[in-house]
Amino acid sequence: MTQVRNILFIMCDQLRADHLSCYGHQRLSTPNIDAIAARGTRFSRAYVQAPVCGPSRMSYYTGRYTLSHGATWNFVPLPVGELTLGDYLRPAGMRVAVVGKTHHEPDMPGLRRLGLSPEQGIGRLIASGGFEEYWRDDGIHPDQKTPADLEYNEYLRARGFGGANPWHDWANSGVDEQGAIASGWLLRNAHRPARLPEEFSETAYTTRRAMDFIAGQGERPWCLHLSYIKPHWPYIAPAPYHNMFGPGDGLAPVRSAEERGADANPIFRGFQDHPESVSFSQDSVRLNVQPAYMGLVKQIDDHLGRLTAFLERSGRLADTLIVFCADHGDYQGDHWQGEKEFMYEQGVRVPFIVADPSEGARRGAVCDELVEAVDLLPTFLEVLGLPVPAHILEGRSLHPLLHGSGAAIRDAAFSELDFAIYPTARKLGLKAREARMVMVRSKDWKLVHFDGGFPPQLFDLESDPLELHDRGRDRGARYGAARDDLYHLMFDWLRARRNRIGMTDEQVDRRPSPGAAGGVQIGVW
Amino acid sequence: MTQVRNILFIMCDQLRADHLSCYGHQRLSTPNIDAIAARGTRFSRAYVQAPVCGPSRMSYYTGRYTLSHGATWNFVPLPVGELTLGDYLRPAGMRVAVVGKTHHEPDMPGLRRLGLSPEQGIGRLIASGGFEEYWRDDGIHPDQKTPADLEYNEYLRARGFGGANPWHDWANSGVDEQGAIASGWLLRNAHRPARLPEEFSETAYTTRRAMDFIAGQGERPWCLHLSYIKPHWPYIAPAPYHNMFGPGDGLAPVRSAEERGADANPIFRGFQDHPESVSFSQDSVRLNVQPAYMGLVKQIDDHLGRLTAFLERSGRLADTLIVFCADHGDYQGDHWQGEKEFMYEQGVRVPFIVADPSEGARRGAVCDELVEAVDLLPTFLEVLGLPVPAHILEGRSLHPLLHGSGAAIRDAAFSELDFAIYPTARKLGLKAREARMVMVRSKDWKLVHFDGGFPPQLFDLESDPLELHDRGRDRGARYGAARDDLYHLMFDWLRARRNRIGMTDEQVDRRPSPGAAGGVQIGVW
Repeated sequence: MTQVRNILFIMCDQLRADHLSCYGHQRLSTPNIDAIAARGTRFSRAYVQAPVCGPSRMSYYTGRYTLSHGATWNFVPLPVGELTLGDYLRPAGMRVAVVGKTHHEPDMPGLRRLGLSPEQGIGRLIASGGFEEYWRDDGIHPDQKTPADLEYNEYLRARGFGGANPWHDWANSGVDEQGAIASGWLLRNAHRPARLPEEFSETAYTTRRAMDFIAGQGERPWCLHLSYIKPHWPYIAPAPYHNMFGPGDGLAPVRSAEERGADANPIFRGFQDHPESVSFSQDSVRLNVQPAYMGLVKQIDDHLGRLTAFLERSGRLADTLIVFCADHGDYQGDHWQGEKEFMYEQGVRVPFIVADPSEGARRGAVCDELVEAVDLLPTFLEVLGLPVPAHILEGRSLHPLLHGSGAAIRDAAFSELDFAIYPTARKLGLKAREARMVMVRSKDWKLVHFDGGFPPQLFDLESDPLELHDRGRDRGARYGAARDDLYHLMFDWLRARRNRIGMTDEQVDRRPSPGAAGGVQIGVW
Repeated sequence: MTQVRNILFIMCDQLRADHLSCYGHQRLSTPNIDAIAARGTRFSRAYVQAPVCGPSRMSYYTGRYTLSHGATWNFVPLPVGELTLGDYLRPAGMRVAVVGKTHHEPDMPGLRRLGLSPEQGIGRLIASGGFEEYWRDDGIHPDQKTPADLEYNEYLRARGFGGANPWHDWANSGVDEQGAIASGWLLRNAHRPARLPEEFSETAYTTRRAMDFIAGQGERPWCLHLSYIKPHWPYIAPAPYHNMFGPGDGLAPVRSAEERGADANPIFRGFQDHPESVSFSQDSVRLNVQPAYMGLVKQIDDHLGRLTAFLERSGRLADTLIVFCADHGDYQGDHWQGEKEFMYEQGVRVPFIVADPSEGARRGAVCDELVEAVDLLPTFLEVLGLPVPAHILEGRSLHPLLHGSGAAIRDAAFSELDFAIYPTARKLGLKAREARMVMVRSKDWKLVHFDGGFPPQLFDLESDPLELHDRGRDRGARYGAARDDLYHLMFDWLRARRNRIGMTDEQVDRRPSPGAAGGVQIGVW
């Protein structure tokens, strides 16, 4: 019987679920990702725990909601006491490494308190989110902040692509009509080909480093987090991907005049005024960026084809669980938003494919049940035959769904956003702790709760799957009942967080009742 | 101007608020504790965060609710990443020590993961709840579990009180009519004098060790957690305290036939069947224990008189903030309960006195506002002029109340109980994670929520201050509205927990909006 020995945990950054052909895109064909789906289960309703990189990833890595792990936004450290993937898999004899991005921020005060160095031993592991950094690169390297010895820049320089920051000047810039560097930071340059030949691009380099790692492991078990930087901005693709798609190939914008109206939710309305939202709400911007974005996805798909062939040749397809997912989506002007920071499907719903090579696992299946990023870690543990510490992990193993034996594993999915640093929070005078939103999404409804006395958003997903009609303040009985139900789900979820991390459920069950053991006598006459 | 330099943080174990004369007891005079109240503010509505030792104490020590610190019951480790009193005060140059009980359980898996030894350095501090253990003794020493070298036992043996476990045989036992040892474990012996002369008792020894510590510090600043083991069981007092009070001196039981009826809340009804509840519901038990309990309180009061005189002689009264409090109460048959594990006032309301010697602080004040155990740590920090990390601490400084300048600091107080190991949970088939109760107590109401589909308890404290009429299932509009209000408070509280512990509110406020700095350009055409 096939036994899973390795895990290939592939993540794309900022990849919308609907930008893969297996998720229904008509013009963007992704046969290699589709082929992974054909080897396992594709989840049509998978949600991330935050629509922004850092907190979403920390939920993937810890199996816990933002509420619990506490890294509520980018650059907020993951507290030193939070266990990650490596804490669970390394003791089972697996090498646990990352190639690419983690966006993990080390808890330096926490490490200092413990007298641990981020440079060595357990301190180093904790400071890198529990991953051995085989090659870590978070992928955003503005000239002002890029270290002189950035590995990818040194790689490029050694191949003749020189300068202070070839990441920007070659990989993420094109050339304008005057022959000058046209920065990929600027959306007006998204249609240009990157100056760098494709084979040296970040996506190509990342794939090769992953193969290096896997080849080097031979028959020794591993868990590799292969974490592509793209299709995250800067939006610029190398030839031939830069013009593989045209402005007519992108999806039509999902938005309505009602959303801009005076009755729109004030927080949502505020986010529409953020610079990137204003920008992406213009068709000229959207239509110039979409083809580049699609090209970057297509490029990743091609590289995953190479990677899959490599796994097949080396025998690894048979004993490796493969996951393909994303940390969040990208609005591209939908709902008058740029970036990803809101609770619409384009922000929080992600591609989520799990191919379990084990005997009995489904092939080519599509699962419409609600699943979450936090489910991945308990799934890994169950598939590997390791204990699932239910007193810490807040996700649920997908194993029953992968093997076709399970019904729904949850009534609702949750996502959170700490938006304290955004202009809207500041404009509305929300304090650092008040600028939070929480989404609960049941089978047929979605509610987004805001603190600070603002009304919630409510969407009837059955009749309004595009989320264009906010019923948050609708007095109708049907909507009142739905709000009550969803708030009850949220209340239950808030109370159910795993905090008793120092004692397992089994240890609790085994404990004698008070006064029943050890010579202590309570209330005995 | 007087400057607070030291903190004397006195705690009694299992002391009901109503067992002090300053809190209204008519027969039990506690002039020395009353004198502390006369030097500061006595809080009439102070609540602990759990009606059981361990989690309540961890909330005192961390300034965080059980929900956040995760030590949900006795013997559940406090996670290694939780900061305690010592983490805040030691860097300010104070020696932070305990004399007596902490009930802190070290997080051994957490320490092992970090490669830290519980025997030395930061590992040792973490393993002792952040306190230097000047003399730690948790006070429960059944023969089966008592280490041979228990310090208090060695102290007793050196003074001629011998045997394998003089803690039990001398300090916590009497002599019966046949001259045999009458164990203090058994409630029927509560009226007997302990075999040990009072001067060697736990309370006397604890007080002397506290004086030793304070004397040894001289002028160097300190925070001492003087944590008496009594009046916690075993209920047996040394002469002359054993018969200073008679059966007629105790408070009348607070209970009603309605509480035992078929309509009583099933969880509450279940707790009435616990052995200690059955025992204390009998008048014979209650009347035999109450005088001993009162004697133990009286003894503590006498020792606090000695301690206060010592502080006065040494000049420490002028620069020491003194707190007197308890970790929870004791039912003694009220509401047909023994022990402390439920959300009635006798369990969760505690004596809470803060005497701030600073100029301008109130003297002999009584404050009826709702305050909580978690408020103590931020109070210490504010009184000492140290920063209050509001992104971690969930309590609120009492400073405005101590200085008479403040109105209410909160709308409601909260307490939680993880009762998974109790017979009721097992009898009702509740899983380890379902056996939780949460209390919200507003000015006029109290609601206790139970998981697992059980109805809440609801008390109208204005018309029913003794909490004898549970309105949890009452269909009246008045009660429905109260339930809704209280559930809203609980919902807000659940969401408001401090989890972003790696970044201060001030750091959040100082951060530029995304894309506004460092060369990153988001959504720029």
